[in-house]
Amino acid sequence: MENFNFHVTTDIRFGKDRLSELPEVLNVFGKKVLLVYGGGSIKRNGLYDRVVQLLTDNGSTIVELSGVEPNPRIETVTKGAQLCRAHQIDVILAVGGGSVIDCSKAIAGGTFVEGDLWENLVLKRRYNGPALPLVTILTLAATGSEMNSGGVISNMATQQKLGMGGKNLLPKASFLDPTNTFTVNAYQTTAGSADIFSHLMENYFNATPGTDVQDGVAEGLMKTVIKNLPIALKDPENYDARANLMWASTLALNGLTGSGKQGTWSCHAMEHELSAFYDITHGMGLAILTPRWMAHILNDVTVPKFARFAKEVWGIQDENPEQAAKKGIQALYDFFLENGVPMTLPAVGIDTEKDFEKMAQQAVAHSTIATSAFVPLSEKDVVAIYQACMSESTFV
Amino acid sequence: MENFNFHVTTDIRFGKDRLSELPEVLNVFGKKVLLVYGGGSIKRNGLYDRVVQLLTDNGSTIVELSGVEPNPRIETVTKGAQLCRAHQIDVILAVGGGSVIDCSKAIAGGTFVEGDLWENLVLKRRYNGPALPLVTILTLAATGSEMNSGGVISNMATQQKLGMGGKNLLPKASFLDPTNTFTVNAYQTTAGSADIFSHLMENYFNATPGTDVQDGVAEGLMKTVIKNLPIALKDPENYDARANLMWASTLALNGLTGSGKQGTWSCHAMEHELSAFYDITHGMGLAILTPRWMAHILNDVTVPKFARFAKEVWGIQDENPEQAAKKGIQALYDFFLENGVPMTLPAVGIDTEKDFEKMAQQAVAHSTIATSAFVPLSEKDVVAIYQACMSESTFV
Repeated sequence: MENFNFHVTTDIRFGKDRLSELPEVLNVFGKKVLLVYGGGSIKRNGLYDRVVQLLTDNGSTIVELSGVEPNPRIETVTKGAQLCRAHQIDVILAVGGGSVIDCSKAIAGGTFVEGDLWENLVLKRRYNGPALPLVTILTLAATGSEMNSGGVISNMATQQKLGMGGKNLLPKASFLDPTNTFTVNAYQTTAGSADIFSHLMENYFNATPGTDVQDGVAEGLMKTVIKNLPIALKDPENYDARANLMWASTLALNGLTGSGKQGTWSCHAMEHELSAFYDITHGMGLAILTPRWMAHILNDVTVPKFARFAKEVWGIQDENPEQAAKKGIQALYDFFLENGVPMTLPAVGIDTEKDFEKMAQQAVAHSTIATSAFVPLSEKDVVAIYQACMSESTFV
Repeated sequence: MENFNFHVTTDIRFGKDRLSELPEVLNVFGKKVLLVYGGGSIKRNGLYDRVVQLLTDNGSTIVELSGVEPNPRIETVTKGAQLCRAHQIDVILAVGGGSVIDCSKAIAGGTFVEGDLWENLVLKRRYNGPALPLVTILTLAATGSEMNSGGVISNMATQQKLGMGGKNLLPKASFLDPTNTFTVNAYQTTAGSADIFSHLMENYFNATPGTDVQDGVAEGLMKTVIKNLPIALKDPENYDARANLMWASTLALNGLTGSGKQGTWSCHAMEHELSAFYDITHGMGLAILTPRWMAHILNDVTVPKFARFAKEVWGIQDENPEQAAKKGIQALYDFFLENGVPMTLPAVGIDTEKDFEKMAQQAVAHSTIATSAFVPLSEKDVVAIYQACMSESTFV
């Protein structure tokens, strides 16, 4: 196990009927609130009205930033930072999923950054400057952004989608009410769960030895998703299923499963290029890529971890490690397929290989997958993995 | 899943060779330091000298409180609080295991409490007043006190051992260096692991439905202990084994596995009376009690959870839930036995049943096990469980 710091101070308020606590949480920071949200689903399900009523009754001043994109864009960040400066905002309230929260983090820091925010904030990747306090109300179990300090911002002009972060961007408090995800449709529920699962696997398939705590926690959370996603799809208002997916999403990426490990993630680097070039749903891109990536890197060195994954996560009993590993990959593929993931790139609208080389170049250039991934990946490897996603797969 | 708050702000510094960060962490609070430790093991292994050298070089003033007991006593708490007041201490530095840290928490709060600290602090159980900041250097993987807000204090005069706590008692920072546990002997290593395992089981065997996240995390941590305890016993300086036990101890009781669940713990209430009457090692008492408690409460309602425990934690494949449950209990008993736990009460020096009724009365009186345990326990149940611990057991 590697040395690590774990200092995650977000005040989690988990459960239903807790929104009345919101004014007290916000008032610690002040009464001028930037309310950030996305495409209006919170207007349809009544959450927007409840939040505005609470803040109005509280005497807060609300400035709104709506229309945050599913892959939030630098233009929206810039607009939000301008609003914060113009209105001397005290606290940002993000109501939404990971995109809204990621965008709000960039705004929280960007308010204090001069000049072009793509150049001076996102491209720097690490931000150690001051930030406005951020409170979140989560509406989608997926990214874990509600309890970590990172975010991903897109620049469609340069076809870049980049992660950035810093400890001052960590949310001060997050309201996690599973009932706020009752109206999430099947497609987004599955995409969110694929994102959770991917975060767990990215941390799990790692070369650092002696990380049983992190791996055991990750296995427990993976089994939680495997059990609860089908329940939530069949019965969208099943509270416990939604609660387990929501809390799993948070713990999957708050440092618990990644601290103490070295190395970089593989599938996220490859998926960010898919999203940057084709604006597909992040979780679906990850689900499509991951089994093909696993099959591509299965070798004598990696097989024990894959066999452990098969046994501990999927309950596969097979004494032959390579066979067990392949059965584990197949089980993952089948799980995604059965829960509605379109498991090929053409099924999500990418029916040409013409950009694969450029995307592979960028995936390698924008990350350290060529040097510090579980198995280092060259541009050629990345192209091969993209190509394997063009048709259905069998692994056993 | 029940509603819960999770707000655990302790700054964890995990790993080796990090003690040079200590002055910077303490200086945030001030330079007058109460150094709290136990029976002198930190003097034998050199940790005391390193800490004192660092603080001296830093220009700190050190006031010492040594000799904290394995079950820390109210007299020591009172002495510590007097020292803090007399020397206008800025920050408490606890160097030790759970006893030293628990004692330091009570001192941190007790400094601000007037009059008798047993009456006005411990017997109140919840403390919401101010507290001195507390920083810890952990030397034993066991109680999890390094990242939670509770502690247990004993009063030998009244034969009471009671839990108390409050959010201001949460350590501000904790240094978790696995090498500081290399010199922990086999007996204490096993007792500490039994304590970790017990915390996990107390939270796991619970009637709240829909807690897959908490249960999955607990299973992962239990498997971590099962794998790493024998390694640490065989090879006390195995860094990864010590690291996994240490981090498991912290996560077992920082809220992750208990948040979202209702109900009270069973074995701790029964064990506190064993320790209060006979001053035995807490972890050993828990290990002796737990399998007998499990067998005592196994019924149609509890069997599914026991069967899940058998399958997910011990890998037991048995289609009959009751048989699986019994095999799981046996596996737990055998695990403790194989790792050196004296698995009967006579083996730890309790060779008479004369106090069992009084202990059972107190166990019920000092806790809510009669109303809100996984299976509610009467005084008669508790006596029966104590009696079952008088000789060796077989469960299958």
